[in-house]
Amino acid sequence: MTRLVVDISVSLDGYVAGPNQSLDEPLGENGEMLHDWVVGTKQFKDMHGGEGGETGIDNDIGAEHLSHMGATIMGRHMYSGGEGPWEDDPKARGWWGDDPPYHHPVFVLTQHAREPLPMEGGTTFHFVTDGIESALEQARAAAGDQDISLAGGGQVISQYLKAGLVDEMQLHVVPIFLGGGARLFEGHVAQAPGQLELTRVVESPTGVVHVKYELAGR
Amino acid sequence: MTRLVVDISVSLDGYVAGPNQSLDEPLGENGEMLHDWVVGTKQFKDMHGGEGGETGIDNDIGAEHLSHMGATIMGRHMYSGGEGPWEDDPKARGWWGDDPPYHHPVFVLTQHAREPLPMEGGTTFHFVTDGIESALEQARAAAGDQDISLAGGGQVISQYLKAGLVDEMQLHVVPIFLGGGARLFEGHVAQAPGQLELTRVVESPTGVVHVKYELAGR
Repeated sequence: MTRLVVDISVSLDGYVAGPNQSLDEPLGENGEMLHDWVVGTKQFKDMHGGEGGETGIDNDIGAEHLSHMGATIMGRHMYSGGEGPWEDDPKARGWWGDDPPYHHPVFVLTQHAREPLPMEGGTTFHFVTDGIESALEQARAAAGDQDISLAGGGQVISQYLKAGLVDEMQLHVVPIFLGGGARLFEGHVAQAPGQLELTRVVESPTGVVHVKYELAGR
Repeated sequence: MTRLVVDISVSLDGYVAGPNQSLDEPLGENGEMLHDWVVGTKQFKDMHGGEGGETGIDNDIGAEHLSHMGATIMGRHMYSGGEGPWEDDPKARGWWGDDPPYHHPVFVLTQHAREPLPMEGGTTFHFVTDGIESALEQARAAAGDQDISLAGGGQVISQYLKAGLVDEMQLHVVPIFLGGGARLFEGHVAQAPGQLELTRVVESPTGVVHVKYELAGR
């Protein structure tokens, strides 16, 4: 059965991007540090057309996640950093160039309708204007027997959490303080008893704690 | 050398107390769930005059922290839940009855001066009106060759973090969402490179992740 999976790097103080996000610094001040643990790994370099890279715990954790994803859901802000009509958006084709690192259908939540955008390497961006449940249904149809990655940002993840639609969540807790920016958990995700079950903790030599939870539906 | 140590339970969404704190619910809605992992342990029952209790990982973690604390620092809100003049504070003698579970000097940060308050069992509350560094100095003098526990709440911890005065921090990450309340990391604790070093991760059968960091000074 296809599952909706969150897999995201977060600072110890709870941010998925630093302060003052901009087109030049899409992850905000110091936000790139959130992904230092993964960009040096072999699986990341493989995926982005590079060579070499480190093997070990962080590499295994990154590769494991990607191995079973058949579709991705993300918010407009994560897709382009923009808002409003597409013709005014300098990143209307996304951040990743002609061959984005997804290689499967990606569903972008937006208020601005648009035809699907096929890219090189198997990635096609689909633009969903009728809400998170619709995006999930479309992603489920596209994923086949694989899982769906809920990529972010924090607000989109919170919306799916509030709706009780997330099945699994892995946080990569990075030993930094960002001191501000975009919080992962904002907007009053209410507690449901027994909602979260810790299923795995992996400590990396890089100081990152990879912690995984199952979420019960509501 | 005496160290300043934070040791605190936090929900997965980053709160050290739930929403709507009150005299009836000092930890806010569902906030008691933050401490379920510790209140059932043998060391906790021993400390609070009870009997029995569970042994195991959570018990060991709790006992370890308490074994080397010679003084405690806390904020006024954690001490009594009140503010303003002491004569109007229904919890002016603290939450814990005649024999508080500290058994050493406790330094309470407040804007309202007051004579020291000796309690049973070795706890004396000292009221510090001239700031966090003064409280730390006084606690250091009182702790001898033991360490100082920075008990909370979140705002006080943030103040000490911002000032670069915390030496060690252990978080007990509890698998619940509180959805609001008092955040542990609020108020722009800025990043210093290399500031945080992961030193230990312990996974408990209760689903709590005990994660410990060393902090470099600034």
